[in-house]
Amino acid sequence: MAGKIARFMREKDKMAVWLNIELLKVRIGYARIGMIIREDMLNAVDVCQGGAIFSFADFAFAVASNSHGKIALAVSANINFTNPAFAGDRLIAEAEELSRTKRTGSYQIKVTREGDQKLIALFNGNVFVKEESVKVE
Amino acid sequence: MAGKIARFMREKDKMAVWLNIELLKVRIGYARIGMIIREDMLNAVDVCQGGAIFSFADFAFAVASNSHGKIALAVSANINFTNPAFAGDRLIAEAEELSRTKRTGSYQIKVTREGDQKLIALFNGNVFVKEESVKVE
Amino acid sequence: MAGKIARFMREKDKMAVWLNIELLKVRIGYARIGMIIREDMLNAVDVCQGGAIFSFADFAFAVASNSHGKIALAVSANINFTNPAFAGDRLIAEAEELSRTKRTGSYQIKVTREGDQKLIALFNGNVFVKEESVKVE
Amino acid sequence: MAGKIARFMREKDKMAVWLNIELLKVRIGYARIGMIIREDMLNAVDVCQGGAIFSFADFAFAVASNSHGKIALAVSANINFTNPAFAGDRLIAEAEELSRTKRTGSYQIKVTREGDQKLIALFNGNVFVKEESVKVE
Repeated sequence: MAGKIARFMREKDKMAVWLNIELLKVRIGYARIGMIIREDMLNAVDVCQGGAIFSFADFAFAVASNSHGKIALAVSANINFTNPAFAGDRLIAEAEELSRTKRTGSYQIKVTREGDQKLIALFNGNVFVKEESVKVE
Repeated sequence: MAGKIARFMREKDKMAVWLNIELLKVRIGYARIGMIIREDMLNAVDVCQGGAIFSFADFAFAVASNSHGKIALAVSANINFTNPAFAGDRLIAEAEELSRTKRTGSYQIKVTREGDQKLIALFNGNVFVKEESVKVE
Repeated sequence: MAGKIARFMREKDKMAVWLNIELLKVRIGYARIGMIIREDMLNAVDVCQGGAIFSFADFAFAVASNSHGKIALAVSANINFTNPAFAGDRLIAEAEELSRTKRTGSYQIKVTREGDQKLIALFNGNVFVKEESVKVE
Repeated sequence: MAGKIARFMREKDKMAVWLNIELLKVRIGYARIGMIIREDMLNAVDVCQGGAIFSFADFAFAVASNSHGKIALAVSANINFTNPAFAGDRLIAEAEELSRTKRTGSYQIKVTREGDQKLIALFNGNVFVKEESVKVE
């Protein structure tokens, strides 16, 4: 079920399509995804845009927090940009569930660069969980 | 000078181009920008993607923090998503300088929807200011 | 009712007692409080401890978020320290409600120094709202 | 040197004294500390005050970020409260360095409860590093 929801989100989420995100591993409360930084994700000084890195981490957050089958809405997120990333780098985002109650959830997402394993960003996010189920059709 | 830097960033930053951001007002330590939410900025449930809203606020943050003429690097950012936004909505982001020292700066960005003036998101970000000047050529 | 809840919290919350917080104005979704920085709130370099400023802002957040009468639990908080504060300074914290649904709430708290009106810290917090009412006895 | 700075901070920081923090392990870029929650750290519903947990994590952050010998000033911090803690619980805070440049540093602090090992809070903080050295006398 978690995998089915993730594939549905990957297909329908327009930013996931634009970023060309690859689903690597998904289970309840967990997601691992990848993407390659393109020229059109760079800022004015040729470093990967903070917004692109945030959006990438945010998608791992969305997949992990919706994996239980109930709609999870992002309430807040915090991001630390720890190292710059560049065109051609392959990034991996790994989302872990820190806590989950019936109506709330807290997640941490680590964004690292494949190859040198450097931490590019650390993202923490909170969701509110609705009573409605995620519809995959 | 603040305006010249902003126009340079608007032209060169690929995410600003993708989001089709409009520069409304820029002065030292301040920026006001606009954008219209398109279909391709929506998530799987037809609400504007958190990543698109973050990227929009982040650009106002970048313009305001670089407006002094020295390169400002984002260290961290926090975002609260307070109301959903939809395709066709015109959003306004206004960045204000909370504090600025020689090497640091703290900014708050309010994202509101034109029309009903609802607060869509509140973004707080910190920069580290380098000794190098922003090059606009 | 908001005032009664605030007075109850001020009396029972041990940190509010230790900080010697003064309730200045309370209404539904809003709180304004004051405190004077003492010698025993300073860090090793004689600046007011970040933890003391956080705890002060956090109390305004708790009062504003519980003012509706339902128990509100803090989920996350973010704080920017924009200017240092010193022993003898009188600080004011003002909490405003950014959004509120049946089960969630988002608040911003500004901490300023009386006198020069400098912004000392900006705090943003989110709560999860329980079904149970705040008991004031 | 990191140990000497930590012991000096533990002695001079008034909040560390009030919280009765125990230094467990300190090395450059790392700190592990403990404390026991007392009755006078509880809020109005007998749960450990968010401000007390923040202050505890913040001290681990301060020790780790000053351990290199240069004065580190907190710029921002984010905290997620993932599980409640109660009087008598022994908490452990562990601070790790996510990144460090000459003038900036980013840290993550995990607060767990001894015994059941539950995550109580996750804290992320950023510092600006001054040119001046920490003076331990």
